Amino acid sequence: MADRGKELIEKLRVKPGKPFDLKDRDPRDKCGFDDDEATKTETEMVAHEIDALQDRLYAEGQRALLVILQGTDTSGKDGTIRGVFNATGPLGVSVTAFRQPSENELAHDYLWRVHAVCPKRGTIGIFNRSHYEDVLIAKVRGFAPKETIEQRYAQINDFERMLTENGTVILKFMLHISKKEQAERLQERLDDPKKHWKFNAGDLDDRKLWDEYQDAYETMLNRCSTAWAPWHVIPADRKWVRNAAIASIVKATLEEMNPTYPKVSWDPKDFKVV
Amino acid sequence: MADRGKELIEKLRVKPGKPFDLKDRDPRDKCGFDDDEATKTETEMVAHEIDALQDRLYAEGQRALLVILQGTDTSGKDGTIRGVFNATGPLGVSVTAFRQPSENELAHDYLWRVHAVCPKRGTIGIFNRSHYEDVLIAKVRGFAPKETIEQRYAQINDFERMLTENGTVILKFMLHISKKEQAERLQERLDDPKKHWKFNAGDLDDRKLWDEYQDAYETMLNRCSTAWAPWHVIPADRKWVRNAAIASIVKATLEEMNPTYPKVSWDPKDFKVV
Repeated sequence: MADRGKELIEKLRVKPGKPFDLKDRDPRDKCGFDDDEATKTETEMVAHEIDALQDRLYAEGQRALLVILQGTDTSGKDGTIRGVFNATGPLGVSVTAFRQPSENELAHDYLWRVHAVCPKRGTIGIFNRSHYEDVLIAKVRGFAPKETIEQRYAQINDFERMLTENGTVILKFMLHISKKEQAERLQERLDDPKKHWKFNAGDLDDRKLWDEYQDAYETMLNRCSTAWAPWHVIPADRKWVRNAAIASIVKATLEEMNPTYPKVSWDPKDFKVV
Repeated sequence: MADRGKELIEKLRVKPGKPFDLKDRDPRDKCGFDDDEATKTETEMVAHEIDALQDRLYAEGQRALLVILQGTDTSGKDGTIRGVFNATGPLGVSVTAFRQPSENELAHDYLWRVHAVCPKRGTIGIFNRSHYEDVLIAKVRGFAPKETIEQRYAQINDFERMLTENGTVILKFMLHISKKEQAERLQERLDDPKKHWKFNAGDLDDRKLWDEYQDAYETMLNRCSTAWAPWHVIPADRKWVRNAAIASIVKATLEEMNPTYPKVSWDPKDFKVV
């Protein structure tokens, strides 16, 4: 998988400034990963390489990596975090799940709660959902006027540019599943008592608005895939392909960042441990 | 290691209300773990069991586990988090390192910044240092008047009781290393260029106050090991013993909590995925 990451970035990235049609992307694409079990084993190895790169990022203490995960219900956001980042451990990684905003959060602009939890230098921050909900559910459900939504795309691009200019590298992944796959996963949550707690009747209401959501995603991808914070559309009907692709891209990005152990300005010989 | 956790809780816990002498605890105690490699392998297995228990805690969503790590410089707080919680992954685990308080934090009471980051229900929170710094370094360095420090022990006990009464189980670990072991670890940070970034000249100043710190720890253990939030003194000169002991105690505690998948109040047959 050495250079797989770079290839996948090229293949899956939404090219900034070019018209993008979500229908051109197949949720069942295998991305060149052939064999299920071998890929899983390789992903585990890549996960450990990410862990080692994260150690260097932490030691360097100068830059952060922000990974944004978006996707419809059941698209596998939690599963991605487990599959790609479990080996990294919690020391230099923080996960934030954005749920329905609280009264206090709603009393601020929509980027306020997001900014507050952006990752510290030296760490990886993972957003399970994000400020993009404010141009997705907010758009589909009409939580904000059209003109307000319209303004947000540029506001988000500006916000993200500011973050990148201040040392945060941003990777955005849309977990792309088919409507058929979602049906199977929702049904599983109804059939398996151990998954009942994951089921939310509201998910069925959102499912009825499938086409509206896909449209909102497409607009988001067209408007907010920028040179500084590009979107990647990840084929996610197959969980092992999803994890393999994201792990490869994260690894390639960290390698490109090439964090280094800081050089110190003092001479070890000047200190004596007594 | 099945019942090892319970035995170790009995052995390593500081009994509430009984006079405690830190000199009675040997930092090189092997806690009955015999063989280095076999213990490491077993600890990895326990780490995965903790991961499975954490999944249930997350699903249940009713209670939290707060793990507090304290210990002198180089006692292995980061290493413990890696060794015990790396398999748990970042999804339901948050780590907070408490450093020198900021101006804004100092403008509040000392428990304010701690309360703000206590773990959410369903998650494990790990504190790398904690409010106990306010009766350790604050005492040794005289950052607060004696009477203020004196009041804090009861304040902390009350605060922690409130947390436990509201669903947070608290486990406190003091990583107990010998002065000789600390010398070796500090020297390593001077000798190994890859560890230079971990070296802090201030650590040598604190080392000169070794006895004062040990006294402050002893007072803290005597005053703040309570029935609801007990302290455990972990022999930490051997990293593999330290990790094995803490992993066993965490696992036993989660098993005792016995989180369960929530029963839902609706009937799966009432829903149809279309």
